[in-house]
Amino acid sequence: MIYFRSDYSQGAHPRILDALIKTNEEHTDGYAMDEHSYHAAEMIKELIGRDDCEVHMMVGGTPTNVITIASALKPFEAVVAPRTAHIYIHECGAVELTGHRVLTVEGVDGKLTPELIDNAWLEFEDDHTVVPKMAYVSHPTESGTVYTKAELEAIRKCCDEHNMYLYLDGARLGAGLTCPDTDLTIQDIARLTDAFYIGGTKNGTLLGEAVVIFDDNINDHYRWMIKQNCGMLAKGRLIGVQFEALLEGGEDSLLYEIGRHENRLAKKLKDGIAACGYEFDGSSTTNQIFPIFPTEMVRELEKDFFFYDWAPAGEGKRVIRLVTSWGSTDEDVDAFIEAIKKF
Amino acid sequence: MIYFRSDYSQGAHPRILDALIKTNEEHTDGYAMDEHSYHAAEMIKELIGRDDCEVHMMVGGTPTNVITIASALKPFEAVVAPRTAHIYIHECGAVELTGHRVLTVEGVDGKLTPELIDNAWLEFEDDHTVVPKMAYVSHPTESGTVYTKAELEAIRKCCDEHNMYLYLDGARLGAGLTCPDTDLTIQDIARLTDAFYIGGTKNGTLLGEAVVIFDDNINDHYRWMIKQNCGMLAKGRLIGVQFEALLEGGEDSLLYEIGRHENRLAKKLKDGIAACGYEFDGSSTTNQIFPIFPTEMVRELEKDFFFYDWAPAGEGKRVIRLVTSWGSTDEDVDAFIEAIKKF
Amino acid sequence: MIYFRSDYSQGAHPRILDALIKTNEEHTDGYAMDEHSYHAAEMIKELIGRDDCEVHMMVGGTPTNVITIASALKPFEAVVAPRTAHIYIHECGAVELTGHRVLTVEGVDGKLTPELIDNAWLEFEDDHTVVPKMAYVSHPTESGTVYTKAELEAIRKCCDEHNMYLYLDGARLGAGLTCPDTDLTIQDIARLTDAFYIGGTKNGTLLGEAVVIFDDNINDHYRWMIKQNCGMLAKGRLIGVQFEALLEGGEDSLLYEIGRHENRLAKKLKDGIAACGYEFDGSSTTNQIFPIFPTEMVRELEKDFFFYDWAPAGEGKRVIRLVTSWGSTDEDVDAFIEAIKKF
Amino acid sequence: MIYFRSDYSQGAHPRILDALIKTNEEHTDGYAMDEHSYHAAEMIKELIGRDDCEVHMMVGGTPTNVITIASALKPFEAVVAPRTAHIYIHECGAVELTGHRVLTVEGVDGKLTPELIDNAWLEFEDDHTVVPKMAYVSHPTESGTVYTKAELEAIRKCCDEHNMYLYLDGARLGAGLTCPDTDLTIQDIARLTDAFYIGGTKNGTLLGEAVVIFDDNINDHYRWMIKQNCGMLAKGRLIGVQFEALLEGGEDSLLYEIGRHENRLAKKLKDGIAACGYEFDGSSTTNQIFPIFPTEMVRELEKDFFFYDWAPAGEGKRVIRLVTSWGSTDEDVDAFIEAIKKF
Repeated sequence: MIYFRSDYSQGAHPRILDALIKTNEEHTDGYAMDEHSYHAAEMIKELIGRDDCEVHMMVGGTPTNVITIASALKPFEAVVAPRTAHIYIHECGAVELTGHRVLTVEGVDGKLTPELIDNAWLEFEDDHTVVPKMAYVSHPTESGTVYTKAELEAIRKCCDEHNMYLYLDGARLGAGLTCPDTDLTIQDIARLTDAFYIGGTKNGTLLGEAVVIFDDNINDHYRWMIKQNCGMLAKGRLIGVQFEALLEGGEDSLLYEIGRHENRLAKKLKDGIAACGYEFDGSSTTNQIFPIFPTEMVRELEKDFFFYDWAPAGEGKRVIRLVTSWGSTDEDVDAFIEAIKKF
Repeated sequence: MIYFRSDYSQGAHPRILDALIKTNEEHTDGYAMDEHSYHAAEMIKELIGRDDCEVHMMVGGTPTNVITIASALKPFEAVVAPRTAHIYIHECGAVELTGHRVLTVEGVDGKLTPELIDNAWLEFEDDHTVVPKMAYVSHPTESGTVYTKAELEAIRKCCDEHNMYLYLDGARLGAGLTCPDTDLTIQDIARLTDAFYIGGTKNGTLLGEAVVIFDDNINDHYRWMIKQNCGMLAKGRLIGVQFEALLEGGEDSLLYEIGRHENRLAKKLKDGIAACGYEFDGSSTTNQIFPIFPTEMVRELEKDFFFYDWAPAGEGKRVIRLVTSWGSTDEDVDAFIEAIKKF
Repeated sequence: MIYFRSDYSQGAHPRILDALIKTNEEHTDGYAMDEHSYHAAEMIKELIGRDDCEVHMMVGGTPTNVITIASALKPFEAVVAPRTAHIYIHECGAVELTGHRVLTVEGVDGKLTPELIDNAWLEFEDDHTVVPKMAYVSHPTESGTVYTKAELEAIRKCCDEHNMYLYLDGARLGAGLTCPDTDLTIQDIARLTDAFYIGGTKNGTLLGEAVVIFDDNINDHYRWMIKQNCGMLAKGRLIGVQFEALLEGGEDSLLYEIGRHENRLAKKLKDGIAACGYEFDGSSTTNQIFPIFPTEMVRELEKDFFFYDWAPAGEGKRVIRLVTSWGSTDEDVDAFIEAIKKF
Repeated sequence: MIYFRSDYSQGAHPRILDALIKTNEEHTDGYAMDEHSYHAAEMIKELIGRDDCEVHMMVGGTPTNVITIASALKPFEAVVAPRTAHIYIHECGAVELTGHRVLTVEGVDGKLTPELIDNAWLEFEDDHTVVPKMAYVSHPTESGTVYTKAELEAIRKCCDEHNMYLYLDGARLGAGLTCPDTDLTIQDIARLTDAFYIGGTKNGTLLGEAVVIFDDNINDHYRWMIKQNCGMLAKGRLIGVQFEALLEGGEDSLLYEIGRHENRLAKKLKDGIAACGYEFDGSSTTNQIFPIFPTEMVRELEKDFFFYDWAPAGEGKRVIRLVTSWGSTDEDVDAFIEAIKKF
């Protein structure tokens, strides 16, 4: 069985696992108040070229989203997101559990635009309506698409006009930063957002994300928010140790290396599939691609490949999702392309 | 100034105020545990022809919606509603504050349909997605439209298929029950829903609604839910006393009489406006109508009439909302029609 | 049957009811955005001698407490209160429902002290512990006791040292302000607290309280908080109209007159009971008193008087609660004293 | 520096780390729906001798407590716990964030008793008071004390009388199960509770706990509750793999072996300290001990040993906490005892 199921089906990238093994018997203070976590935070500040921020080692993507949103918003404030956003579709109402509406707009290929944010404000009237106070974007999006620098700048400008926060979910940031389709750098993201996170789980760590927060209000007592929302690990250094390994080398680090590897293999897959005449749902250029195949062919492929049978795509056809990961190989991709040539 | 602003701009209908005056010096137990509240509950059970239910005197529409929804749902469960629903548009995220998503669908003239409920389930996958567990309808809707018996039966059937609750918001139930456009009776509503409420505030009381709940799970400790959600009045008999006056006479009671009065005047308004060649937004047949006028005409009308300047309606035009109330008169309506004839 | 059950067992004081009758047919804007509500707010600002505050007409005591506390606190912050506090004992966990701990301390005769607040801080460690951020006092307390000016000043000083808010629940403020046992004035309360409310429900209105807020953070979007927490009345002017009547005349107004009346009758009751040789639980000097009677005597008294059988008081004895109200009379009191003389 | 700071200052026990290394490159399905997690669950069912339960791999102790409590309780229901309970003292109000009161009672050496539960019910009146619906015990407690079989049976009986759930927090269950001071077995715990968890984090894993739930209501959609409360790991198999290693061998497994090791070293420490004439706070017989030393001596010890300076203990004295862990050695203990002999 060859896996294109997800970028979290294996354990840690070997270099990250090594870091865990090497530090295993060290004694450190708990709850991410240790030298590894502090060092990882410093490495991130250096990478983004700013130190007017707080960096926290987080246990996962959903807690990072929930805690950051809940730290930013007053009870009656809402976060604006595309209807396909992870916080709306795949977090089981975790944001709403903290009392806030995820105010959805339709989205354009998984992305938010200034116009869509303006539209969200059309629903606003007065003290009978929630206040759209934060814009949520992910880079890449759930659809694998990416923002350009100009696009994110336009959203920032729109947020400023509405006095809104801009938050970027970087669950797959490595793939986003190394996607040839966009000029958006991590320094740009640090310049344009009030908070964003660098995903570890989907980029080679066992678990963990690193959130970077520039806004004073969001930063206020953020560690209390982590604890109260079930997001604090006793052995917090686990995440710090992994991020040290992930970030070593700056733009040559594993964060980028894994992203490039994933994107390269995804493009190879996509090109191979396209060469066979198949079409795709959406326009992803990162490590998730969404080819459309005849249903029967999908059923056959499932015998040798493990992937996500995503959605119907009209009569007799299915969209599937193929994801490349740090552990994916050229051989995996070649095997898939060979397989579809048989149909 | 003539008022078509809302059905809550005056105090109580005189017969309701009389009931308050007559009972003012009585001593009763607090928190709606008094003979008036109990009697009003019995009157409702008689009216609907069922006594396998609990009836509670509630302080307002938003608390009734919030408390009933929160009593019905587990944390990860959602209520499905049209995007124009009061709980989505005009309650400032009160449902979300209790941790539940209002899962919106587009709505057809303000109404929910079985197809729309089915669509909401398309977003459902597994333990990463909220569970659509309740359908919310209002009768009449925010757009003034009404459900027919067949329509509500179809929604009930759909809810049964999905194992969902059906809840009906009757903020303006008097107008709904007396609308010639529908055959839906209060006995039908009692038969088809798991819970519904009879609106007082928008039907002649100073404040207060009466909720009727058939489902055991929703009924469990409902009074605790009222108290915990800030909805319990110390002098709870206020609402009971008013509902006694509102319901005296069953289908000849003030509940129906005010509804008929409002609908008759609204129809007279609508016919008069239509006769002048103007169109309407939506197809309301109850006590809210939404004519479309040139913007300049709206500005002129505002000098003598107080109404809601609702929304833009294309180049140089506005939708306004006119609402008739227990205190509206034929003279009010005649004056408005005379006024628009001048344009 | 003679009632000493509560101060909310009858309707409105006749002068308040008159105000409602006189204004009943007026048209006003909804949701407390009307001239009566605005005027009542101005009357309060004049009474307290400050206008650097917001005043809101609220539907009841629990919503006032909950909304003010929730407006003040971040999620991980707690409100410190005596274990006998209304927010802990009689609001069914409404504060906790908004996510905040009511951090209880033992209380001295129902009152908070600087030492008790300091004690609450002993539980504080770091990001694993909630932050005590607000002190809650009621005046009079649930036990009928009152704060002196010096006591409230000491609490204010303690709050300042801990960077805490001070909030005063004035459900029975009329009785507190007119209690001969204390020198604390409403102007003092306005000077020393960040927010407080003037109770209507237990002081002669049908319903409604008026909250006065000095702190900018609590005031921010307070009306959104009211709406989202189910506390906004469509016919909001009801409360404004009643407070106009309650406050007319400043320190000679009904607010003070009812308080004096209640306190005078309660003292007469207390003196009469003491003269018969009975003791009391606690040291209330306002309109709630807590005599201790033999259980058999309580059972006899219950035949002619309606009161609260409060708690056991050792072998064969009970504490009962007697409350005087705007409608209580000298005859009621005389009858009770005559009755106990028979035992 | 020698560490007695906590049982979570190092990484994983070598045998657990090995299991992670061996399985690192395996592909599995995400979110704990993998063969390792399922196998670990089966091992637990076998160990406790019951399979009428659900077992879930959880990310940490706070999420396990919060999610189990929130799954069990309706909004107005409370969990009864000693004031020293972890859920009250060290989880930053996480339970309250889900809307539930932690109803504290004083506790006896960190433990709950039937009398204390009965006392909690004395605060209950009616629909104005929260309903005490669950009893929370930890074994060992925060004070290191343990329950006997008879004690837990008595609490179970009391819970049955009050129709309450009984939940046991087993953060340090390994130490509890192997403590010579109690006859309580894991089979007893499984028989007497509605839910309990086996702690991993404080017993040799990198992270993770395993919760065992017998009650149908708590089990209903528990995975949705995990996700919504931020407790679901993408690479969920991490916890399953570690619990396989922790549980291999049943009562001879690492779970018990580490517990015995910790308890033995703690007893050796305690005996050595006692032999020097020092006293202890509380009566812990597990891997946390609380000796009382002169403050100056504490300051000296801190130069070579890392421990928790716990609390003042009267004039010139401090309680400190010493914790033994899987990585603690006889040499560590000997060094400490030698050190105190110098004073």
